[in-house]
Parts: sequence; structure tokens; C-alpha cells
Amino acid sequence: MCAAAATDYRYLSYEAGLKGVKTNVGANKVGIALFGLGRIGTIHFEKILSNPRSELLYCVEKSQSRTDYVQNKWKLSNTRMLTPTESDVIFCDPQVTAVVICTPTQTHEQLVKKALESGKAVLCEKPLSLTIEGTVKCYEAASKAGKPLLCAFNRRFDPGFKNIKDRVERGDVGQIQVVKTCSRDSTWPSLEYLNTSGGLFHDCAIHDIDLICWILGELPTSVYAHSHAFNSLFKDIDDFDTAGIVMNFPSGVISLTDLSRSAVYGYDQRIEVFGSKGMLNSGNIRPTGVVSHCSNGSTAVPICYSFASRYNDAYSFEIEHFLDTVQGFSEAEIRPHDTYATSKIASACEESARTGKIVKINWEQSCSVTLL
Amino acid sequence: MCAAAATDYRYLSYEAGLKGVKTNVGANKVGIALFGLGRIGTIHFEKILSNPRSELLYCVEKSQSRTDYVQNKWKLSNTRMLTPTESDVIFCDPQVTAVVICTPTQTHEQLVKKALESGKAVLCEKPLSLTIEGTVKCYEAASKAGKPLLCAFNRRFDPGFKNIKDRVERGDVGQIQVVKTCSRDSTWPSLEYLNTSGGLFHDCAIHDIDLICWILGELPTSVYAHSHAFNSLFKDIDDFDTAGIVMNFPSGVISLTDLSRSAVYGYDQRIEVFGSKGMLNSGNIRPTGVVSHCSNGSTAVPICYSFASRYNDAYSFEIEHFLDTVQGFSEAEIRPHDTYATSKIASACEESARTGKIVKINWEQSCSVTLL
Amino acid sequence: MCAAAATDYRYLSYEAGLKGVKTNVGANKVGIALFGLGRIGTIHFEKILSNPRSELLYCVEKSQSRTDYVQNKWKLSNTRMLTPTESDVIFCDPQVTAVVICTPTQTHEQLVKKALESGKAVLCEKPLSLTIEGTVKCYEAASKAGKPLLCAFNRRFDPGFKNIKDRVERGDVGQIQVVKTCSRDSTWPSLEYLNTSGGLFHDCAIHDIDLICWILGELPTSVYAHSHAFNSLFKDIDDFDTAGIVMNFPSGVISLTDLSRSAVYGYDQRIEVFGSKGMLNSGNIRPTGVVSHCSNGSTAVPICYSFASRYNDAYSFEIEHFLDTVQGFSEAEIRPHDTYATSKIASACEESARTGKIVKINWEQSCSVTLL
Amino acid sequence: MCAAAATDYRYLSYEAGLKGVKTNVGANKVGIALFGLGRIGTIHFEKILSNPRSELLYCVEKSQSRTDYVQNKWKLSNTRMLTPTESDVIFCDPQVTAVVICTPTQTHEQLVKKALESGKAVLCEKPLSLTIEGTVKCYEAASKAGKPLLCAFNRRFDPGFKNIKDRVERGDVGQIQVVKTCSRDSTWPSLEYLNTSGGLFHDCAIHDIDLICWILGELPTSVYAHSHAFNSLFKDIDDFDTAGIVMNFPSGVISLTDLSRSAVYGYDQRIEVFGSKGMLNSGNIRPTGVVSHCSNGSTAVPICYSFASRYNDAYSFEIEHFLDTVQGFSEAEIRPHDTYATSKIASACEESARTGKIVKINWEQSCSVTLL
Repeated sequence: MCAAAATDYRYLSYEAGLKGVKTNVGANKVGIALFGLGRIGTIHFEKILSNPRSELLYCVEKSQSRTDYVQNKWKLSNTRMLTPTESDVIFCDPQVTAVVICTPTQTHEQLVKKALESGKAVLCEKPLSLTIEGTVKCYEAASKAGKPLLCAFNRRFDPGFKNIKDRVERGDVGQIQVVKTCSRDSTWPSLEYLNTSGGLFHDCAIHDIDLICWILGELPTSVYAHSHAFNSLFKDIDDFDTAGIVMNFPSGVISLTDLSRSAVYGYDQRIEVFGSKGMLNSGNIRPTGVVSHCSNGSTAVPICYSFASRYNDAYSFEIEHFLDTVQGFSEAEIRPHDTYATSKIASACEESARTGKIVKINWEQSCSVTLL
Repeated sequence: MCAAAATDYRYLSYEAGLKGVKTNVGANKVGIALFGLGRIGTIHFEKILSNPRSELLYCVEKSQSRTDYVQNKWKLSNTRMLTPTESDVIFCDPQVTAVVICTPTQTHEQLVKKALESGKAVLCEKPLSLTIEGTVKCYEAASKAGKPLLCAFNRRFDPGFKNIKDRVERGDVGQIQVVKTCSRDSTWPSLEYLNTSGGLFHDCAIHDIDLICWILGELPTSVYAHSHAFNSLFKDIDDFDTAGIVMNFPSGVISLTDLSRSAVYGYDQRIEVFGSKGMLNSGNIRPTGVVSHCSNGSTAVPICYSFASRYNDAYSFEIEHFLDTVQGFSEAEIRPHDTYATSKIASACEESARTGKIVKINWEQSCSVTLL
Repeated sequence: MCAAAATDYRYLSYEAGLKGVKTNVGANKVGIALFGLGRIGTIHFEKILSNPRSELLYCVEKSQSRTDYVQNKWKLSNTRMLTPTESDVIFCDPQVTAVVICTPTQTHEQLVKKALESGKAVLCEKPLSLTIEGTVKCYEAASKAGKPLLCAFNRRFDPGFKNIKDRVERGDVGQIQVVKTCSRDSTWPSLEYLNTSGGLFHDCAIHDIDLICWILGELPTSVYAHSHAFNSLFKDIDDFDTAGIVMNFPSGVISLTDLSRSAVYGYDQRIEVFGSKGMLNSGNIRPTGVVSHCSNGSTAVPICYSFASRYNDAYSFEIEHFLDTVQGFSEAEIRPHDTYATSKIASACEESARTGKIVKINWEQSCSVTLL
Repeated sequence: MCAAAATDYRYLSYEAGLKGVKTNVGANKVGIALFGLGRIGTIHFEKILSNPRSELLYCVEKSQSRTDYVQNKWKLSNTRMLTPTESDVIFCDPQVTAVVICTPTQTHEQLVKKALESGKAVLCEKPLSLTIEGTVKCYEAASKAGKPLLCAFNRRFDPGFKNIKDRVERGDVGQIQVVKTCSRDSTWPSLEYLNTSGGLFHDCAIHDIDLICWILGELPTSVYAHSHAFNSLFKDIDDFDTAGIVMNFPSGVISLTDLSRSAVYGYDQRIEVFGSKGMLNSGNIRPTGVVSHCSNGSTAVPICYSFASRYNDAYSFEIEHFLDTVQGFSEAEIRPHDTYATSKIASACEESARTGKIVKINWEQSCSVTLL
């Protein structure tokens, strides 16, 4: 393979199709039920619909106008639309081998367990549960059912981040010394959303925490977080819109993360890995390569505006990976312990931010999840 | 709409879906037959397959192993695979409302006419015909049948180029003075392909010519082209691998284009529009935003390696546009006269390159196409 | 003035000269004595030599071969070379109106005081003294002598950082929320240098601290720092090569800084200011705009390798500013309180790093410096 | 030497000074007389003034207010200011070993010859003469006098272009296939200047022509140029503000150049060399690395506004090179034949633009210059 093609994942996929490379041999289509057609459900809906490996059999959504719209827009003749109260149909339907859960956070745990107990594979948006104990129970249910349970940390499937992970493992940066991430949302979320989001650390920071620990392959021994609410909306609900986080790792690596709920210039998502042999970074993505040059300077079009566009490919790869786990070609990349650890670290960050103290994390106090 | 979102076409599409904006109301799914599963057919195949507005009813391909592969890979249960000799079935099937033609160039004209005469809408790769007369006949057939005939100039559907076209029309660059394009393929095409490609000017330059005339909204009065074969493969078949083209326009605008059949660093596709108020340019696209920094400098991952990845979105939009024309929501954006004019200009460039003279183009000698 | 020229400081200076704009009217040449021809002295030497506003009368350097080399290379006929023991000549010479001190840190305080007591203006590399008390005494001496004392925080004079400072003051980023800086040296300093450098926080972090406080116009109420020695050289002398620092400001602003003593890809110097209206950042500078494109990707030439090249213009502006203060056209931009505050913050950071605790800073415990 | 430092010319110079590397051993200061303190003379004035290897003995300028300004601003005590009529003093002064000529074009030839006949080395702005015959005579005078005559093609001394030249010679791009340059001035020149500029081809294109031929190491066999006057100012004096140029080289290389007298976004200077092994390009330079991110996109500060800032370092290196030739350390890099050839090519371009024909260049009709 030509080196110039090595990182062009779309081309590689095209070339494989052109050359007739065989993939997923012998696998049947995966019948899927989707719970929730909201801001993340809409994304998974389109990914499932356009993926020939899957067949969307059910959508569960309480809003009738939403299901009507979706059914008409996409000319869905083979997909049944259900309200949440009708969802038992799904668990009894043997055609459904997998469910994708995009409902509000507080409903996750119950749906996950029910689906697994019905013998369905599960892809669930994070968090699996409101509590660490609930998370453990979800994984125990998966273990018992012998079915995949994939917690949707979408950034793991971003081709840029994967490329960095691969190069780090290959040793390209030598001994890692510093990792930095920056995550800024581009629009204020609704108050409705914020009320159940779990707060800045569990809703946002958890992605950065997962990314950093995944790339490093180690867990922090202590964290320090400082946060602030510049927007009174957040202050009113005792949440924060801005934070800085430092994590210290056994190897000596120091990580720095800064978070914001709102950047006017778009959805800012960056990572940088610095080590003895150099630095790798993943910068922001722009929808096109258009630049305008005038007397004010040279202006590139704004960066992607939202997770929907920025992580468009990551969502495609996430579904592909989920289908791989359902069809038995792969283990879930996000392991039980990953979900457990990131949740524990997010809690430690929140504790640090609220107490103004450095929080040490004791990984000895392990739970059954670490054994899964 | 927030300015930061205005150029993020993926986000805008997502937002429209989330907000329930109605599109293509009342339209039925478009039954499609695809001719050819080669290097461009493979791309259209996937775009049709993943577009819920269309249903792929037939694929025509002479290679049995290719059709077997495609059918198995994509679990196609509702798509019939035919050999070219069996293709009459398609023209008689009333379920088929549109055909997409990706077969070798010399077969285009006959297929286009037959499809139109059978009452099918047609999307055909360029050129429609080996001759200008043949092209005219194709459009006459479309006119007679009252069906859309869309010649696939894919670059028109690239979001970056469209953005430049929009801004130029809005007056952002003032009086245009210079337009430059650069097009370099990334791998040597096969000799088999080259033998029927139509040569550097009709196969490659024609895209740049169309792009420039489309953005300018005017046609050149004279052209100068100089070309060379650095690779003996091209010399042997009396073709060229490299060319420089200058076109002069009535408004005074000067265009410069350079072409190459092979760039080792990827599929180089750039345009620049310079005028009294500034410059707009569209640079190359990279698969990810990863940059590696070491003692040799800072290295961004290679640009897209091929048209398949570089114009991935353009191909999606092209099919969307074709479906719009089939469903009656839009006229074909590439008009008969566009196809006619670009073909005539490409011929003039080739004449210039072969004679070493500047070639004037007489647009008075119009033909019936200009009236369509 | 055209907007396109507004940030092109070299052009603006050229244009002023071309148009005959009068500057520094009536000022005499400044006679200068330079102490030290080492790694920073060499830079000031060239800046003084090439500045027509100044005349280099003396260089003090213990190494005879060094003074011989410099004198021969630059054909210095009017500059006297002295050894440190001979430097009293300078303090008695009324031609000398200013001294520039680039000797090892431990000699600063005494030289600064002696020069001021002799009625000379002083530009001294930081720190002025090994102790905060010593720093206070230096400023008291300046106050008593009625002569400028400029502590050389060179980054303040970088045109990019100044531009950011100006825009922040103009309100371009709205309410600032996060400031980030990254500073990485490109080569390991010598052990000899490290032994007297004052350590990572006083030698390196102090520049970032000064830059952040200068841009924000406020001082932190608490700091957290975590540091590590990846290179045993640093561990052996109880110093660090890597650190992460978080500072919290009264306005709610959070700053994050990361430092390293060695980056293989060059002298990495970045700053980012994020606020309610957008973000400003200053990226790295490269010696030329050359990019190489091959199958490995697109490689820009390495960033500037050293402070000598990266801050080349800043050093020019620093000397210009010093001459302005000597000739009475300007007050020193680095005020006594700045030097005092940054030193105090650096100490707090070091305390945090060594104790593993967050350190609060009490600005009420002010000293006489704050009144100067 | 570390690879990361290899292209950082300022650092390398600093390092050489720090390490005591000996240069120009035994050479005396060069006494210089400068003719002209206008838009280019002002640049050379500052470069000479700040270079310790040279001593500015005379400035010749007809404007008394200009000489007064310069003398006061720079506190010149050792530089005599003369009017053109007084300039014979210079030719008789044995202290003057070199003259730098920045007067209007029509005065060049006579001054060059007089200076050479007086035994002075000469750096003269291009063109040496209004005619090719005059150019030949200048070089004959230099040959007879045995003194260096350097025609100031400043771009040859740009560190970026030199780096490209070096890499091309090293074989980095393999067989060169296409070279492209783009040169756009940022402000309309004065009518006074234009009336004696020599026109777009001799005033502007000649720089691009020299650059291309220098990098390629070969001369074109034919040229095609098309030009236009968008601004009536140029039409009125039968000149052009915009042009496109194609040159064809014996090796098969094709060059494309576009020129404009005015770009609102700054002084646009780019080059690109494309070959079988990759592409090298030199992009525009910006005064700082500051980028502003808001809802309109990410805006880098404007590129350098003028030759004065863009080629600031090139002018420094040009004077250094001239001093090298005067002190006998180097031959003039711009050889007689270079000046002759670029002038001939510029004339051919103008002929092409005015006749609308391709112009072949016969290099057999050589003149004595080619033998020098």
C-alpha cells in the first residue's frame, strides 16, 4: 500500500471494495431497535439506516410528531414506530438482535438490563447508569447474557484519535510526558438537558478522561480540577460551564484538560501528546478547505459546529464496531473497566472542583467490574 | 442561524432532521439500475445503496466475480445482477425510473439514448459521447423523452467549490481578475483505462474547464495549452501526462490551469479566485487533522489519496441532486450547453497543445444544444 | 492606514521612515556597557551593535578568547573589552549612560545596584536578584537614583503577544474565561547552567506567569503545580524538566500552563486566550514558509529552534524600549510590582509542586515594591 | 547539527557567533556610497547602517528634506549627504570601495559604468540598463575594471527560496515537471513610478522569470503571455496590471506565472515546484502567528504587506553577499548571463502579450555577455 494512502480511511475502504476484499463473511444482517430519536438518536438513526449490514426494525420515541416526521422523511416501510410504553414488543421479537439506547440518562440502566436479559446486544450512550453500582450491574447482566454491551464513547472511533493512539503505541513520541485535551461545546445546551446531564464532569470531562487514559494505557493517581460558572444558568443549578483539570499518572505523565460549555466559533476538540521523540496533535476539522483572503487577513471557514458533524465518521465507525461485536468479529473496545474507571475519575474531578482539594484515587478498592 | 454553522453542511442537514424540516414531500422512492461496477461505479453503488430515497433494483456488470462479491458483501436481496447482454430487462421494467451509467466511455451514448427512449431519467459519467454530435443527440433524446439527463461533473457538487461559487456571485471578490486551478491524480491509471480515456484534455482538463466556466459564468474566447509526456507510457499512446492551460475571457479574466496524471503525495485539487476585493481559495482536504512534530518539521497526514475520498461528499450530493431532478424538485444543474461548451473547449486545448498555437473559439457557430 | 498593513510592524516602520515621520527627536546616542557575552549577552550585543540609537562602549567578559573573537568578528574599534575585575572603569565613565546585564544570576543584584548608584540606567536579565528582598532593594536603588531599571521579560515585546494583549484590551474576546500557555525549550541546557538557573519555576515558568498576568491584568489567588523529572539530570539536582500549572483568578479565569525543558522539534511557544466572544491564539513561528509534500504527508520546516530566533524581534523591541526609557520617552513597561508578583507566584508554584498542595497567595501582604 | 535547527538561519547565525566560528577573516570594513533614498534606497540604507561589516560614507539624494530627515533620525555623524550634482566626490574618494545604486531606472547605466570605471564595486537595482546593449556594456565595464557588479535580484536571497533551490538540487522532487509562481503587489504604485517602471513584464515578471530559471537551471525555448488592464490607469499608459505567463523548457518542464499589480490582502509571493518525487512550495509569510477565532471562522493576521517586510531578510542577505563579493570571499551569484537572459525573456513575454502569439526564443543568437 502506498504510504500516501495509509491514513485515508475512506480511500482504503473504497479500494477494498474495488479489489473485492472479503469482510464479515457469513454474517447475517443485524435487526436493530433504536430507543430515542433526539439529538443523539437522530445521528444513530441515520447511521443504522445507511448501513447495509443492519436493518432498522423499530424506533421507540414518545413524540408522535417526531416518529411521523422520521417515517415520512425516510420512506420507512419496514420500520415500526413505537411509543415507550409499547416497547415490550421489541424484547419479545427474535428478529431484533441488538438495541441502541439514546434515551435520557435516567432510563439507561433499566433499558440496558432488560435488553440484555432478553438476549439482545446493546449499544448505550454514556453513562450506562447514574451510579457506579448500576454500571456494574449492567456489565454483570451482559456477562450473564453472554451478549455485547458497548458504552458509546464515540471519540474512540474518531480516525484522527485512533491514528494518534496507533502512533503512540508504535513509539512515535517516545516516552510520553504531557497530554493535553481541549473540549468546548459550541452552543449552550437547553436547561432541560442540563438538569439531567450529570454536570460538567460526568457529561463532558468524561470524554476527555476516557481519551487520555485510553491513549496512555494507564490511570491517574491524583486529580486536580478547578471550575467556574461564567453563565448564571449554570450557577443557578449548581453546575459549571468552565473547568481546568490536571491528572497525574504513575509514569510521571501530566495531563491538562480545559472544558467549556460554549465556544462561539464552533465545536472545539483538540488533543496533543508530547513526548521525548516529538509531539502528535489532532487539530480541529473544517467542513471545507475554503479560505478567504482580504484586508483583515486570511479566514478559514469555521470549524465543525457540533458533535454531529465533527464526529460524523466516528459515529459511522462506532456502529460498524458495534455490528462487529454483534456478529462476533470483535470484542467491545470499551471494556467494563474503562467505563468504571472514567466514571470514578470524573467523580474525583468533581470532588476536587467542589472542595478545592487535590483528590487521590485509590485503584486498589477495585470492584467486580475490574474482573470482567 | 449562527454564522459559525453556515458552512457546516453536515450540521445543517442534521439540524434540519432534528427540527423536523420537511423535504421532498410526497416523492416516491426512485428505482435505479446501475451500469458498471468499476472504479466510478463502485462509488455510485454505495451512494445509491445508503440513500433511503432510492432503491437499487439492478446492477449490470460483465464480471461475474464482481457481481458475486458485491451481492455477498452487501447482503443484497432485492437487487438483481445482470450481465450487459441481459440489460434489456431493465428498459422494460417500469419499476426502474432512473439509470446511472458508469460503463466505459464508448458505450455511453448508446446506453443514454436507449434509457431515455425507454422513459428513464439518466445520470451518466462524462463524456456522454465520443463526439459533440453524439452529445447533441443525447440531449435531443432527453428533450424528446421529457426526462432529466445529468452529465456527472462531480466537482460542481463539492461543498467547498459551491461555497466559492456562492461567494463569487455575492460579490465577495469584486471584479474577478485571475482564476487558477490545479488538478493532479495520485496514481498512474492503467493502460487499459488510458486507451479509452479520451486523453488528458477530455478526461482531466474538462473538469477544470467546467469548474472555471461555471464559477465565472462566461466562456473563453481563446485558449493556449502546452503539454508533455514525462512518462513514456503516455508518449507511446500519443497522450500527455502534464499540461498547462491559459484561457482568456471576454471580461479580461485570465485562467491558469495545470494538470498532472500523477502526484506521489495524493490527489491534489485546488482552486483560487482572485479579484479586486480579495482572493478565495479551496485547498486540499486531509482525512484527519493529525500533525506530527519532530526534528524534520511538522508533518500533516497526506491529503486525500483519490477522487473516491476527496469527492466523497460531492458524490453524495450529486446523487441527491439527481434524485431531485427525477422527483421533479429541481432542473439538472449541468445544462446541455455546459456539456457542449466544455467539450468544445477541451478540444480547443488539445488542438493548441498539438499545434503549438493559440486557438480562438467561435461561440457564434452555435448548435441546437445551445437552445435546449 | 490600510487594514492589511496594521499588524505588519516591519512595514509600518519602513513606511514611517519613507514618509519621514519624526521619532525620538532631540535624543542623544546612548552609550552602553554590556556585561556578559554568553548565550543571552550575545543576542543583546548584536541588537545594540546594529541599533544606531546606541553606541556600545564596553563589553565585560571573563573569557579572553571570547572578547577577542567578538572584537575581530565585528571589527570593533570603539568598544573596549574588559574583564569583570576591570569593570569599575565603566561606573566612572560619564559616557556610559546605560548598562545591560547578562551575567550569571547570582551576580545580578550587586551589578544592578552598583550601576544605579553610579547613575546608569539598567536593563537586567531576570531575575534581578535571588531573593524577593533583593529585588525590592534593586527597585529602591532605581527609585533613589531616579534611573530606569528594566527587568528583561522579553516576551512582552513579541509583536504577536502584544497584538493579543491589544485585542484583549479592545474587548475582542469578550469576558476571558481560559488562558493557556505552553513553553518548551528545544535543547537540554548545560548542567552548569542548570545549577544556577533557579529551577524550572523561577527560570521558565516565570515567563508564562508574567505573560498571563500581563494579558489578564489581574493576579491569581491560588495556584496548583505538578512537576516531574523524566531526565535523571534534573532529578539529580532536585529540579524538574516538566510541569503543569493551574492558576485561578478573581474574575473566575482559569489559566493552564505546561512546561518542558526539551522538545526535539524546536522551541515551542504558544498562547491561547479564550472568552465569550471567541479565541485568540499565537502559534509557533517558522523560519520560512517552505512545505514539502510527499507520500508521508506535508511537512513544514521546523519551528524556530531557540529563543534566539523565535524572539529575535522581541529582543530588538526590548532594546528599543530600553532606549526609550533611557532617553525619557517612556516609562519601563515592566513595573516593579510585576517583577515582584511574578517572582512570588513562581515561588508559590514551586511550593505547590514540592508539597502536592494547592497554594493560596495573599496579596495583602504587600511590600514597598507595590508602592513604587 | 540537529535537524530541527537546519533551516533556522537566524539560529545558525546565532550559534556560530556563540561558538566563535570565524568568518570573513582579515577583511576590512567596506566603505559604501548609497545613491537614492527612495522606496528601495531606504531599505538598503538601513541594512548598510546596521551591518558592522560596512560603513556608510555617503548618501546621494536630490531631496534636501529627505537627507535632513535621515541624518537626524539616525544621528549620522560620519555619513556625508550629497545632491546628485555633487556625486563626483564619491568617485574620487578612495575610502569608498563600493556603491549601491537605487536611483530611477534611466540613471542606472551611467552610474554603474562611472562607478566601475572609478574602481568601485557595484550593487545596482534591476535593470542595469534600459536596453540589452546597455546591460552588456555594464558587464564589460565590470570585467574591464575587475570589480564585482551585482544586479539586485533580491528574491534569490530569500531563505525560503534558497531552501527550495537547495532541495531541488539535492533531488528531493525528482524530475521537475511543473513550476508555478504567483506575484501580486499590494498597493497601486504611483503614476510617476509607473511611467518609468519599464512595464509589468520588465518591472515585475522579470523577478519570477529569474527565480524560475535559477531553480530549474535552464532557459525557456518559448513563452506565451496574456495580459490585461483592469485598472484604467494602466490602460492609459499602455501598460497592464494583470498577466498570465507560460514558459516551456527543453526538459519538458512547464512553468506558469500569474502577476497582478494589486492585491488588497497583501504582498502575495508564492512558488511551487512539482516533480516526480513530490512538491515543494513556499507560502506567504505573516508578521506574527496570531489567529482569531470567531463565528466567521479562523482569521490569521494578513500576510506581509510589502516587499519591505516580506523580503526583509532577503535584503539583509543580499547586502551580506555583496560585501562577500567586495571582500573577495565570493563571486556574484547573479551572473552576467542571468541578467541578460531574464531581460530577453521578459521582452519575449511582452511581445507575446502584445501580439497574441507564442514567442520562441533563440538562445543561439548569443552575445558577449554569455561569455563573461
